[in-house]
Amino acid sequence: MNQMRRTEAGSVQLSETGRSVRILDQSRLPSETVYLELETREAMYDAIFGLQVRGAPAIGIFAAYALAVLAAQQAEQSDDRAALLEDVCANAAYLKSSRPTAVNLEWAAQRMVRTAKAAAAAGDTADVIAQRLRSEALAIHQEDIAMCTAISEYGLQLIKSGDGILTHCNAGPLATSRYGTALGPILLGAERGMNFRVYADETRPLLQGARLTTYELQNAGVDVTLICDNMASMVMKNGWVQACFVGCDRVAANGDTANKIGTSGVAVLAKHYGIPFYVLGPTSTIDLSCKTGADIPIELRRETEIRELHYQKPMAPEGVKCYNPAFDVTEHALITAIVTEHGICRPPFTESLKRSVLNSSGGQIEK
Amino acid sequence: MNQMRRTEAGSVQLSETGRSVRILDQSRLPSETVYLELETREAMYDAIFGLQVRGAPAIGIFAAYALAVLAAQQAEQSDDRAALLEDVCANAAYLKSSRPTAVNLEWAAQRMVRTAKAAAAAGDTADVIAQRLRSEALAIHQEDIAMCTAISEYGLQLIKSGDGILTHCNAGPLATSRYGTALGPILLGAERGMNFRVYADETRPLLQGARLTTYELQNAGVDVTLICDNMASMVMKNGWVQACFVGCDRVAANGDTANKIGTSGVAVLAKHYGIPFYVLGPTSTIDLSCKTGADIPIELRRETEIRELHYQKPMAPEGVKCYNPAFDVTEHALITAIVTEHGICRPPFTESLKRSVLNSSGGQIEK
Repeated sequence: MNQMRRTEAGSVQLSETGRSVRILDQSRLPSETVYLELETREAMYDAIFGLQVRGAPAIGIFAAYALAVLAAQQAEQSDDRAALLEDVCANAAYLKSSRPTAVNLEWAAQRMVRTAKAAAAAGDTADVIAQRLRSEALAIHQEDIAMCTAISEYGLQLIKSGDGILTHCNAGPLATSRYGTALGPILLGAERGMNFRVYADETRPLLQGARLTTYELQNAGVDVTLICDNMASMVMKNGWVQACFVGCDRVAANGDTANKIGTSGVAVLAKHYGIPFYVLGPTSTIDLSCKTGADIPIELRRETEIRELHYQKPMAPEGVKCYNPAFDVTEHALITAIVTEHGICRPPFTESLKRSVLNSSGGQIEK
Repeated sequence: MNQMRRTEAGSVQLSETGRSVRILDQSRLPSETVYLELETREAMYDAIFGLQVRGAPAIGIFAAYALAVLAAQQAEQSDDRAALLEDVCANAAYLKSSRPTAVNLEWAAQRMVRTAKAAAAAGDTADVIAQRLRSEALAIHQEDIAMCTAISEYGLQLIKSGDGILTHCNAGPLATSRYGTALGPILLGAERGMNFRVYADETRPLLQGARLTTYELQNAGVDVTLICDNMASMVMKNGWVQACFVGCDRVAANGDTANKIGTSGVAVLAKHYGIPFYVLGPTSTIDLSCKTGADIPIELRRETEIRELHYQKPMAPEGVKCYNPAFDVTEHALITAIVTEHGICRPPFTESLKRSVLNSSGGQIEK
């Protein structure tokens, strides 16, 4: 795993020693390329909350590594198995509280806790439990790479060379692992000599589209044009967009999809202009326990993100009220299809998503 | 006129001497309150192009004062009537080229040219022609105040105390004269003790909503909440918006409306969520020579406005392509009504707008 090429691995890696998590600080891109070695749980929490590591799948991978690293540190200090298990549970709960909307964080943390509990129940020593957590985290990362590749292949069936594609926020390799989800079909297609014109919404307030999506696509040699979020309507009206590709942070059982704030607006516009709107993400993002989008908690963030932009300079009157939801929910009726690693889910999503989660290959999922 | 209270006059004034135009530099608000005295035609052009003076009606008032000031300067130098007339025409053409979309600029410049030609044809001296231009510019400003007041009264019929109103860009007193157009009903209603909750789109790339709309509403004691443009969908879905009010830069004969980039997206969202969408502007904004929005020229602006935000710091990779239209066209089918100083125009706009331009009081225009 440590030998994995960086471009395949994304922005999160386990360090050589296994005693820290190494991340590319996404909050400083594209101006600065800074890698951070995180060793304490506080630094790990802050990295998620401060969006130094971001993107639902990347947060899941990061949380898994973080829990493995913290367990390895503790196993070095003490061979108390019960104390280690307690610590893993406490660290998982602590890290999960950093961002409420993305379900992958919760999913990865729970998987790590289950692994620790199973190992402890089997009578493993603290050291062996820590080793199992390390293996589980590496597996989560490897599985994400396989999932992104599968999603990219399925997504590529939905577009053809020459198409214009609009995307919102960032769901590329930085946010996931290899290829990414929403950017996956574009990057995979580009590798195969296909040409796309990509319109990247800048994605206020934190500008992930301007800073990260354009950076990834420009590096890959893809024709990308940056637009302000409010220009999507005009770009669609101009006839420049043949498909919208977005990622997702949590998908409810009926297909309602929580993703970066502004995604639902793109979906409404796409419907108005008759453009297909596709959501791409791993099945770990589908939360069947949420019946509809109304059950998905939406994170509210600091007002200063709006008032002071990315560079901490005021650009609105002091004290003016701001509303700063990090995500919104796109109604399932606005979504043409949801692409997972198991295929393309079409409406009714209550059926197709369930089959995708159960890894069924039959029914309405296109392969 | 020079005695007019600043709050009534808006952001543009003729100086005491009549030899310069005084403006509140809108590009520096809200951080700095700077007044500029503009004397040369180059400085006047730059003030429009650089958005130091902005808002379709304010640009019209400014252009009228600018032409009067330049004529007064020349009449002091020479009593050559033919040369003065030639100069007025040349200055009008030059100033008009600063921004192509807003029709008020063209409208005001043409009115000033007509005034100069009529005076010259009547045998007036250069000095008298310059005086007539000064009177005409003052009249344009006074008429704008009367128009804004009328628009505010009509617009106020469309909302009730307690309503939530979403607005895009800035069409308040800074952009016009007293009250403004889109903000007019809100400010007038507030004076009468009505309470509104206003959601102000920040309006990327130049942040007129964040910088100017919140500034004007906060100063007037109105409950205003700043949102990023991509949050409008969620705010509407939350049920917080009962009406959308926007200004306009040019309205075609069929009601298609050019306004700040992003306006069409707000209109699509409003339709999706079943919220009325109102355009407010003086009849000087209606251009019957444009049959549809396709005839309205759309200004493309510098890419750096997107890449470098308002504070000239890079926030996207160097050299990444940007698309930066200053305006977009909202299809008439998305517009509930267009409010002018003569009343409320409802569909079919081909009929109601024509009557409004002809200042007819009959037919489908609600008074």
